[in-house]
Amino acid sequence: MPELRKDPILGRWIIIAQERSKRPSDFIIDDVQTTGGFCPLCPGNEKTTPDEVLVYGRSPGMPRNSSDWKLRVVPNKYPALVIEGELDKQGEGLYDRMNGIGAHEVIVESPRHEDRFTDLPHDQMILTFRAFRDRIRDLSQDPRFRYVMVFKNFGKAAGASLEHSHSQLVALPVLPRMVVSELDGSLSYFKYKDRCIFCDIIRQETQQDVRLVCENDDFVTLTPFAPRTPFEMWIVPRRHNSSYVDQDDRMLSALTNMVSETLRRLDACIPGIPYNFVLHTQPLRSQPLEHYHWHFEIVPKLTSIAGFEWGSGFYINPMSPEDACRYLREVEL
Amino acid sequence: MPELRKDPILGRWIIIAQERSKRPSDFIIDDVQTTGGFCPLCPGNEKTTPDEVLVYGRSPGMPRNSSDWKLRVVPNKYPALVIEGELDKQGEGLYDRMNGIGAHEVIVESPRHEDRFTDLPHDQMILTFRAFRDRIRDLSQDPRFRYVMVFKNFGKAAGASLEHSHSQLVALPVLPRMVVSELDGSLSYFKYKDRCIFCDIIRQETQQDVRLVCENDDFVTLTPFAPRTPFEMWIVPRRHNSSYVDQDDRMLSALTNMVSETLRRLDACIPGIPYNFVLHTQPLRSQPLEHYHWHFEIVPKLTSIAGFEWGSGFYINPMSPEDACRYLREVEL
Repeated sequence: MPELRKDPILGRWIIIAQERSKRPSDFIIDDVQTTGGFCPLCPGNEKTTPDEVLVYGRSPGMPRNSSDWKLRVVPNKYPALVIEGELDKQGEGLYDRMNGIGAHEVIVESPRHEDRFTDLPHDQMILTFRAFRDRIRDLSQDPRFRYVMVFKNFGKAAGASLEHSHSQLVALPVLPRMVVSELDGSLSYFKYKDRCIFCDIIRQETQQDVRLVCENDDFVTLTPFAPRTPFEMWIVPRRHNSSYVDQDDRMLSALTNMVSETLRRLDACIPGIPYNFVLHTQPLRSQPLEHYHWHFEIVPKLTSIAGFEWGSGFYINPMSPEDACRYLREVEL
Repeated sequence: MPELRKDPILGRWIIIAQERSKRPSDFIIDDVQTTGGFCPLCPGNEKTTPDEVLVYGRSPGMPRNSSDWKLRVVPNKYPALVIEGELDKQGEGLYDRMNGIGAHEVIVESPRHEDRFTDLPHDQMILTFRAFRDRIRDLSQDPRFRYVMVFKNFGKAAGASLEHSHSQLVALPVLPRMVVSELDGSLSYFKYKDRCIFCDIIRQETQQDVRLVCENDDFVTLTPFAPRTPFEMWIVPRRHNSSYVDQDDRMLSALTNMVSETLRRLDACIPGIPYNFVLHTQPLRSQPLEHYHWHFEIVPKLTSIAGFEWGSGFYINPMSPEDACRYLREVEL
């Protein structure tokens, strides 16, 4: 059974997901699954994944787990957390732990193995953003969970272990430190200014117009003022809203347009660049928050030289966000 | 001129150290300097580095920057921050920035190119720990600086760009987020318990004896309760002290013994494993702190699968610290 543990000084939770067979020497080998021939996410191989929890585009009357679908969500076959069991919180002297209850799911973004997320047509890409919303909504009914982390790793350097285009979600019984820090930081700004800091950022970025990569009526994409890596970008809705699950299909369509343009601009600048794509939204079952604003963050994974972290939360970035923005704006699509 | 910028939500500082010649496509190439033939850190090549700021083991009467030395500290030839200039703090709407004043130095740990830090004899290794102390002490006289970050990257995966054994230090006009978080976390524990949390951790670890890798009269090495990666280790002094620069030569000798044994155990478990080694100590010119405790953290850099971070401060670790500790204890040295 996996276990959640809290660092007593920093309050950071980590998952210990022990793999019994591993010996020390197993950890140095690059452990990416080969794609030679067999892909468990391709149509026809539905029986090799756990039973699906959501499907779009299946014809009426076709059985569960049949090969007729446009998007499919399945539990991870090697989950970091397990869905069955009661939460059991324990102390051990000054330490805190709980058993690793949670959900770990894979969103298969297209039935076609060769599709890249960046190149998906609008009608296909939007299904991914609907699946994020519908799965978070469903999982929020489980009182054991406090947050659903939604993320996409593109490219081996960013942690992707399967070639077939997919994203992941992890439902957690605790709040990740990233969320706690953002909630705290934006709340202290709100207490001081009585305004949402993200709304203020959008206002300032729109006026300054030096870090604004692209925009439409509902979203802006910007290179943040203090980025960790070259080409880091945030996709932020113009209108204040703290919760991704509140978004209707019209908003998700506008989001799809913005994500699609953003990723195509990134890929045109550095073809094939690996990246992490992470949803930031309010905790499950929270009331709407005046101080918080949902958004996506795209963090490219570059070499250790570019976007270097000194093991201490201090990043050195060899490219200013203004330069990155200029490259991203000027690139030919 | 490099620039320091603060994320307005998280309070995280980053350095923008622009390299003018870089184009987007330059960032994807692995940028490690070759060691084919010429090493700027080897004796005889002193003229190719900036003027040395500290040297040990040079015979009396020999000139500065001559080839006769046991350890040498030089400014980084490609510094992330620059030493000359006044601090200039500026706002830009809701954002904060300052010019990139700081020091960035390289500690050359041995004159012999082929030496690995892990294998250095005691008399040579201790010089590195003295250099850390003596440089921090010297830099703390500069009122522009608030913290000196000291770290060692071993192996390409951990960010080392030169083969010759070296560590680095960066003097900063701001406090890194890691330090702020540790100071805050340990202070809130102290307010509640009136005890140092690190002292309590040492007490509990010594009693439980399941995460204690090795120890001597002055130090313990432990695998922390909530580690980010397999084989993460902390080296902590037994007696409470918040400041590394207070350590005398006797303590540094005991530290050298502990670090040497710890790194040899790690290397025996996974030969050649890359790692970051980071000093955690109190801010410059701070009064002694009852709630904080200086220490070193060793964080191995493994594959993206082992020790995986989901882009959100949430780590999944496939090995428990109890198992890691058992391997590290039982390995033959």
